[in-house]
Amino acid sequence: MKSSNGRGRCRQFGIRIGRFSPGKYNAITDVKGVLIGHSTIIQDIVDEKNQKKSIRTGVTAIMPNEGNIYEQRLFGGNFVLNGAGELSGITQVQEWGIIETPILLTNSLSVGTCSEAAVDYMIQKHPGIGNQHDVILPLVGECDDSWLNDNAGRHVGIENVYAAINSASSGPVIEGNVGGGTGMVTCDFKGGIGTSSRKLPNEMGGYTVGVLVMSNFGNNRDLRIDGLRMGEFFEEFFKGKNIRKENYGSIIVVVATDAPLMSIQLNRLAKRAALGVGRVGSYADHGSGEIILSFSTANKIPRETKKMINKVKFLLDQKIGPLYEAVIDATEEAILNALFMAEDTIGNNGNTAYAIPLDDIQHIMRKKRRIFKNEHPHAP
Amino acid sequence: MKSSNGRGRCRQFGIRIGRFSPGKYNAITDVKGVLIGHSTIIQDIVDEKNQKKSIRTGVTAIMPNEGNIYEQRLFGGNFVLNGAGELSGITQVQEWGIIETPILLTNSLSVGTCSEAAVDYMIQKHPGIGNQHDVILPLVGECDDSWLNDNAGRHVGIENVYAAINSASSGPVIEGNVGGGTGMVTCDFKGGIGTSSRKLPNEMGGYTVGVLVMSNFGNNRDLRIDGLRMGEFFEEFFKGKNIRKENYGSIIVVVATDAPLMSIQLNRLAKRAALGVGRVGSYADHGSGEIILSFSTANKIPRETKKMINKVKFLLDQKIGPLYEAVIDATEEAILNALFMAEDTIGNNGNTAYAIPLDDIQHIMRKKRRIFKNEHPHAP
Amino acid sequence: MKSSNGRGRCRQFGIRIGRFSPGKYNAITDVKGVLIGHSTIIQDIVDEKNQKKSIRTGVTAIMPNEGNIYEQRLFGGNFVLNGAGELSGITQVQEWGIIETPILLTNSLSVGTCSEAAVDYMIQKHPGIGNQHDVILPLVGECDDSWLNDNAGRHVGIENVYAAINSASSGPVIEGNVGGGTGMVTCDFKGGIGTSSRKLPNEMGGYTVGVLVMSNFGNNRDLRIDGLRMGEFFEEFFKGKNIRKENYGSIIVVVATDAPLMSIQLNRLAKRAALGVGRVGSYADHGSGEIILSFSTANKIPRETKKMINKVKFLLDQKIGPLYEAVIDATEEAILNALFMAEDTIGNNGNTAYAIPLDDIQHIMRKKRRIFKNEHPHAP
Amino acid sequence: MKSSNGRGRCRQFGIRIGRFSPGKYNAITDVKGVLIGHSTIIQDIVDEKNQKKSIRTGVTAIMPNEGNIYEQRLFGGNFVLNGAGELSGITQVQEWGIIETPILLTNSLSVGTCSEAAVDYMIQKHPGIGNQHDVILPLVGECDDSWLNDNAGRHVGIENVYAAINSASSGPVIEGNVGGGTGMVTCDFKGGIGTSSRKLPNEMGGYTVGVLVMSNFGNNRDLRIDGLRMGEFFEEFFKGKNIRKENYGSIIVVVATDAPLMSIQLNRLAKRAALGVGRVGSYADHGSGEIILSFSTANKIPRETKKMINKVKFLLDQKIGPLYEAVIDATEEAILNALFMAEDTIGNNGNTAYAIPLDDIQHIMRKKRRIFKNEHPHAP
Repeated sequence: MKSSNGRGRCRQFGIRIGRFSPGKYNAITDVKGVLIGHSTIIQDIVDEKNQKKSIRTGVTAIMPNEGNIYEQRLFGGNFVLNGAGELSGITQVQEWGIIETPILLTNSLSVGTCSEAAVDYMIQKHPGIGNQHDVILPLVGECDDSWLNDNAGRHVGIENVYAAINSASSGPVIEGNVGGGTGMVTCDFKGGIGTSSRKLPNEMGGYTVGVLVMSNFGNNRDLRIDGLRMGEFFEEFFKGKNIRKENYGSIIVVVATDAPLMSIQLNRLAKRAALGVGRVGSYADHGSGEIILSFSTANKIPRETKKMINKVKFLLDQKIGPLYEAVIDATEEAILNALFMAEDTIGNNGNTAYAIPLDDIQHIMRKKRRIFKNEHPHAP
Repeated sequence: MKSSNGRGRCRQFGIRIGRFSPGKYNAITDVKGVLIGHSTIIQDIVDEKNQKKSIRTGVTAIMPNEGNIYEQRLFGGNFVLNGAGELSGITQVQEWGIIETPILLTNSLSVGTCSEAAVDYMIQKHPGIGNQHDVILPLVGECDDSWLNDNAGRHVGIENVYAAINSASSGPVIEGNVGGGTGMVTCDFKGGIGTSSRKLPNEMGGYTVGVLVMSNFGNNRDLRIDGLRMGEFFEEFFKGKNIRKENYGSIIVVVATDAPLMSIQLNRLAKRAALGVGRVGSYADHGSGEIILSFSTANKIPRETKKMINKVKFLLDQKIGPLYEAVIDATEEAILNALFMAEDTIGNNGNTAYAIPLDDIQHIMRKKRRIFKNEHPHAP
Repeated sequence: MKSSNGRGRCRQFGIRIGRFSPGKYNAITDVKGVLIGHSTIIQDIVDEKNQKKSIRTGVTAIMPNEGNIYEQRLFGGNFVLNGAGELSGITQVQEWGIIETPILLTNSLSVGTCSEAAVDYMIQKHPGIGNQHDVILPLVGECDDSWLNDNAGRHVGIENVYAAINSASSGPVIEGNVGGGTGMVTCDFKGGIGTSSRKLPNEMGGYTVGVLVMSNFGNNRDLRIDGLRMGEFFEEFFKGKNIRKENYGSIIVVVATDAPLMSIQLNRLAKRAALGVGRVGSYADHGSGEIILSFSTANKIPRETKKMINKVKFLLDQKIGPLYEAVIDATEEAILNALFMAEDTIGNNGNTAYAIPLDDIQHIMRKKRRIFKNEHPHAP
Repeated sequence: MKSSNGRGRCRQFGIRIGRFSPGKYNAITDVKGVLIGHSTIIQDIVDEKNQKKSIRTGVTAIMPNEGNIYEQRLFGGNFVLNGAGELSGITQVQEWGIIETPILLTNSLSVGTCSEAAVDYMIQKHPGIGNQHDVILPLVGECDDSWLNDNAGRHVGIENVYAAINSASSGPVIEGNVGGGTGMVTCDFKGGIGTSSRKLPNEMGGYTVGVLVMSNFGNNRDLRIDGLRMGEFFEEFFKGKNIRKENYGSIIVVVATDAPLMSIQLNRLAKRAALGVGRVGSYADHGSGEIILSFSTANKIPRETKKMINKVKFLLDQKIGPLYEAVIDATEEAILNALFMAEDTIGNNGNTAYAIPLDDIQHIMRKKRRIFKNEHPHAP
């Protein structure tokens, strides 16, 4: 049931969020055309001042359209639950409702590097950008991993961005301490990258919604797993442990779907992902950057064309409800997957983030299921 | 513990949402200066076409500043979770960040009547409006009660608005089938008006946040009580019962606080109330009007003054987190209170909305508490 | 050149705004499917308190889709330059990006009446609304005409709404003191309803953009006609005249186009109309309601359908620039047309609004043209 | 009247925009506490591929609070007229309504470098950032100068950011081809940095509003100088000249005031600056980044304090109108100053941008003034 390291995704522990089933990989890659790649940097160095520094960071790349996002752009949307963070390029998504670059996730101080590297990559791939063609503004989201990572050392290099992009693939997605999530923390436990998906029944359109999060927010006190507040339960666990305080953290959520949604619908979809973040226990503190980006792979918007008019299809609003449910549930589950898959990490300054103890959770969830199942008050 | 009719507020059933304590009345009126009044219309008539019509509607008035809101205005904010609804006057709140009229809650087709009545009332009270003084744009929120109420008959009159305003008072607030909430439905059960409050500990500023909802949204399938999904549990209850379908409904949430917040902070506070709505199970369907209005009683903004400058105090953002938690929790509890206090109602066309069965809930919640308390895996 | 009353549209006085030509009628009705109707109320009465009251008000109806807007809905957008006003139903346009009702323009205190009348009309036309079908939220915009009109007397009746809707037609549009514009004032002169259109050259798509304004804003001091500040020039004209002060006023702008734009593009188009308002001299004062609504007739969004998917076409963003220019120019010209066509009006309390003196303007514009034409510094 | 190079600010040519007078320097530095510094990079190099490249770029630094913006933060606001551009850090300004970093203006591909350099500078100045203290997100706005500058070569270095910041001072501001504006183009002419200010009369509060622009937008066809469309006039000038096409460009506008405005008011002020951009002829094309940032120096918001409450003063909304007028006028004049002060520039690939010919403008403006003055139709 569990991996050799004792970790596993939340479904392996009997936790099923919501009424819809996941796609094949229960990952954002279940949306056809979405590729995920990571570049993880774990290294202990001695810097020029002879000080020991621990690097626990990286880059995660989301390639929205088989990597062909520049020529065949996609409708995109967004929602900012709390904006004390940066997702560079978001102003253009808000204006155009279109996504035309890869999406990169990294630490707070590497946004500039990742943005430049993405431009570099795009110019290599599509010569003419910034010359005959317009400049592009890459989408780079960040969370602050300075509890575990020597953030100030800016250890993400252009080569990491290339590595993340070049390794991007469909299929299963590595979660937990990986890529941009390597040094992230969630509800006082080790967090990081998590993903989940939902496939709607055919009578609801058969669409797939996939969510990938870089999760770095919250306090144990507020953590809810499938609705159960866990704070009190884990109080003892944290007794005497030195954990990240003074930093509520952030979360970047990327939502992909093959449902044919326009940008205004994708904005609304992104708003629902925020409800999913809320269900895990976020109150979106003053200093957090809780930013959601969404896109649909169903329509391609050509960059260069002789035509003035593009034909697209879109889902009638009246049918959008199940997608809303799906995105809330997949967001909740993606965050749980980040928590469940992440492992104990000792980082910069000897700071530690602990993996959430899965045996305890399994124990509790088993009890929870009993509430309704075995002991139903109306049961015979 | 329960009222004579078997109903009670959720705390009477052991349900405590969040870590902070409620104010004295666990109501929006715990914020000093906020008055609540209701006018309830329950009547069965035969209309001019000789058809039987049932009226189950009314008006709820929130008077934000002891009724002196026109002369001494307050900072206000808002957030729209889903905008398929109307809160007339909201454009001005978005522009000015100021509230200068009473807030009225009613059914969808009585917004115009309530708006005109509020102008009437204000002109009576402050002669000169629309003459020497500017026109005002009253705040009137609506939900669609047509499952139980002869909405199309437009039975709210100016006299109901006056009655609601004139009866507005501090102290305990009547909940459930009352005022604007008389004909409302929530998660397939009878809903309506609910309220709750939180008082922060003194070291967090000692501020009070109060929430009042007119709750009319959702499906039983999604209902969560303190995190527990109840859908499966109540499936049997609804078997064979004719309930409202084809209408996801809406919710209007009014948030009051005595914390000194500016409008930009009140917008953010309103956004957190949306997370509270989400925690009860809303996915904010395409057709719902989930609109939140917030205000702070701490600073008064004079209407007529010789001065150019106003002095105000405001809470530093770094200290705002506990208010966010409080508003999420109070919103969740206010919705539960609406559900718990509402009673079985037979309305127009013989349509019925059932009160949520409290004994069953009590049974389940008792079990839930046991998960952590008696059977803690780390317990000695 | 001029009408028998000496008034005329600004083109009749040699004023051509921008580089594109108007459509056939130089009116919003040049966008096929858009119908305009007015109901004008001009009456002097003695009220129940035996006081003389002058009524100078009315309703203007914009029917966006040959009146079939409920069954075949249109993409819509909006922008609020300053939000101290009301356009009821706008929250839903912001949420859905869809328009499904007539658009009505009237005085500030008749919004409720017009909204109810529009519901009435829609229920008559489409039985089932509010019963099997959802409730609708009509779009009703307002400006404050209380300088000339007994606003507080609320003289707009349901019959006026019906009259405006039923008289709506294509072809030339009556401007100036008519419909909702009957009592409106602009830059201290008599204002009201104005309209204009632009037809793009075929190589730019051949699309038509039409604008209709209910113009009621500003000070003579700021008035610009085709860029020329007129304030100083008209100072003498206003000497000794009693004019509206204490009220900056408002403007509602409705933009229609047959270009296939999605809602996000229509929001952007609406934003450009604000630049047109600015070019006439508005600084959008604190108390003004400068609200713009836009829609495209190119795609119909069905209300009831078995299908989940709708196919639409839309203009590629790269080609949208000329539409932006066109809407700025048409907005500027529509406001000028309102000014040029309006006539001297004596209203409530004997208050007067004067028509802008066209002979003077003709004189000045002739001189202006000479600057570049005859005396070009590089001329031979 | 003019400088030795024949250039001068627009007032030197008799152009006075609006009714209010400028401050002492007619510059953003008239707002006490605002410092401006530039670092200009003009160099011709041979790159590693042995190709000749011309560097025409730089950095302009706006220090909002005597450089003490981190400890004593200011209320800030913003408005995006068209969002195809980047002003990094803007999401946080939208969320918090507070500015806490310097503001840097540069070319599109140097945003990352400037952002990192600003963090560097802030850490040097305030040790503890990113460690005991939160990370900061610097405000860096960009326009695309690739017509004249080897943008892709990324020639802005950290040292340029330090140079711009360290040279920041009060007093007169250098305009035209300087700092971030070195390679910018406006309405087909050479553009760049421009500034202007207005001081309100004492009875309107005596406040100062200052505007600084990095102007890089538009077509000659649309250019208006004090309302006069100049396009036709300059057609001949451009005949046969090779000018920037395919790029509408962008503008970043920074608005400072000592009027005590809160963030919601500063958002509204920023919106009015957009009207000023529109008056010079912008229609804010699809691909432009027309972004406005505003702040008030009147209230300081402490970063670290024991207190929970901050006391501030703010201007009553009813008195804000003259500030709106002032910001529109100062924006218009700042853009004209950028045009009037910029000089002929030959840049990368031999591309040229021509200075607007001031003699011709002087000639035309002299005629224009005659329209009203000497030949007033009502003149004796």
